[in-house]
Amino acid sequence: MHQNEQRTLAVIGTGVIGNGWITRFLANGYDVVAFDPAVGAEARTHQNVERAWISMEEIGLAEGAARNRITFVRTIEEAVKDAYVIQENVPEREDLKKKVLEEIDLHANPEAIIGSSTSGIKPSTLQENLTHPERLIVAHPFNPVNILPLVELVGGQGTEQTTIDRAVEFYESIQMKPLVVQREIEGHVADRLMEALWREALHLVNDGIATTEEVDAAIVYGAGLRWAQMGPFLTFHLAGGEKGMRHMLEQFGPALKLPWTKLEAPELTDELKEKVVEGCESHAGDMSVSKMEDRRDEFLVKLIDLVEDYWPESRSLAKSGQ
Amino acid sequence: MHQNEQRTLAVIGTGVIGNGWITRFLANGYDVVAFDPAVGAEARTHQNVERAWISMEEIGLAEGAARNRITFVRTIEEAVKDAYVIQENVPEREDLKKKVLEEIDLHANPEAIIGSSTSGIKPSTLQENLTHPERLIVAHPFNPVNILPLVELVGGQGTEQTTIDRAVEFYESIQMKPLVVQREIEGHVADRLMEALWREALHLVNDGIATTEEVDAAIVYGAGLRWAQMGPFLTFHLAGGEKGMRHMLEQFGPALKLPWTKLEAPELTDELKEKVVEGCESHAGDMSVSKMEDRRDEFLVKLIDLVEDYWPESRSLAKSGQ
Repeated sequence: MHQNEQRTLAVIGTGVIGNGWITRFLANGYDVVAFDPAVGAEARTHQNVERAWISMEEIGLAEGAARNRITFVRTIEEAVKDAYVIQENVPEREDLKKKVLEEIDLHANPEAIIGSSTSGIKPSTLQENLTHPERLIVAHPFNPVNILPLVELVGGQGTEQTTIDRAVEFYESIQMKPLVVQREIEGHVADRLMEALWREALHLVNDGIATTEEVDAAIVYGAGLRWAQMGPFLTFHLAGGEKGMRHMLEQFGPALKLPWTKLEAPELTDELKEKVVEGCESHAGDMSVSKMEDRRDEFLVKLIDLVEDYWPESRSLAKSGQ
Repeated sequence: MHQNEQRTLAVIGTGVIGNGWITRFLANGYDVVAFDPAVGAEARTHQNVERAWISMEEIGLAEGAARNRITFVRTIEEAVKDAYVIQENVPEREDLKKKVLEEIDLHANPEAIIGSSTSGIKPSTLQENLTHPERLIVAHPFNPVNILPLVELVGGQGTEQTTIDRAVEFYESIQMKPLVVQREIEGHVADRLMEALWREALHLVNDGIATTEEVDAAIVYGAGLRWAQMGPFLTFHLAGGEKGMRHMLEQFGPALKLPWTKLEAPELTDELKEKVVEGCESHAGDMSVSKMEDRRDEFLVKLIDLVEDYWPESRSLAKSGQ
């Protein structure tokens, strides 16, 4: 594959996720060839890219990046034949995804990377019937795809390590933060976490404890602010005072037995405790809890200052013209 | 109670949460009287207030606010007798909390508000043996208490509505966003959501799917960024395209049946669907999904720009002196 061929990417399926990929690819200076059988798909994509482009200019465009370097074609074959990376984003149905991937497999360059945006299906399942399963990888992004940096990369039993390595390089080159998931499971990692929170949220609404708006407020004004900088483990590492996660698990570990949430907790064995404590301590490196608190606080003060214009009640105020 | 007596607040228990309250109260111009039987508590509080004060100056101090307007006393009686609001933050053990609250109840002004920081216990349980249960409320904050605005207010069976109303007024006056929880349950609302995510995170680590660092990355670079501005419901409202939550539930509803997470999902009945869709639509008001997307994107671009200096790898870089 020639260098200039690496400038062409294919996007199969142009819903919310597909259009996010198109915007990100174009803003990073690529040519994009797209396929979607839906009526009006091309017009919707142009509309979406147009809307999102202002953000991409703000973030900074790659040299030569242009909104019009996209072509819609009539077949999957035409879309994928010259593409360096093929991003598949058809609806989340296993039979449909497998059928589309088989068609892609038939026409793609053997050296291409085929990335599936599936949020739940394992790569080993997707690659079952492919002639070149070694180039298939799950590359699962987060909405809005053109802005959020996370992409989960998951190889299946048939995926070659070089595909994973090349995928890391490619997604990093388009300003993303690839998280290589070591063991494939349904829902990968991030959606497992989000789905747990989502299910609990549905229970709270279903049981009449809180409205959807109250559930959202319970996240936005509290934990949500912390999670932009620090995940659940480091957050609790800092809740334990100077002794960090070790103290936290001693103090709050017993609460795992309480009937909070309808999610059954794992047994807090010594082995699990050690895994968690060592994970946090190694992640924290030689930075003390108090030093990390300083960083967190400095960040949070700036964040709240930023976010105040965007919080729900400022939206309401904006609405009523005040 | 005279106006000037309303300038005195009591803090019972000065761990991470109690010290956060003290800092917030002082920064808002109050006098604070504190009690904690632990050796060295007073010194630790001064150290904590000192460390946190730089953030409070950044946020903006109330007129007359001073770090030294705090007094440690030797008994709960002395601490609470002249206080307008008494904030209880002793360790999360039901028997201990009840004992301390009975002591507070004995000496507090009948018109005082007694706020418990409990993260899990129901107010009806806490007020069981009080002479004046009507002034007891759960006022559950989030770490760091001096910076994060969320406080969950939950009344029990014995709590008077006026106590809830006065509490809303008080916590708003110290720059917080009170969320009045209509029905008391263990863990209130926010901690139910966080605990669900936390339990799933422990499962992922326990099952060897991801390290603590990878779990954190899966939040920080994706959903965590969105949650600073928008909770799980509005987030999914925007994932559904122009038709919002209604389309989202049609498309992803079936995934609730999948074995993602170990949290069992509620049955997605028509009634629950309507509750969720109507909740989102009423929350969104007359703002279209596409208008909300514009706001979200504008916010996210600014947020990522801000957060880049605070993300884990920038910490690692800082550590190695690069």
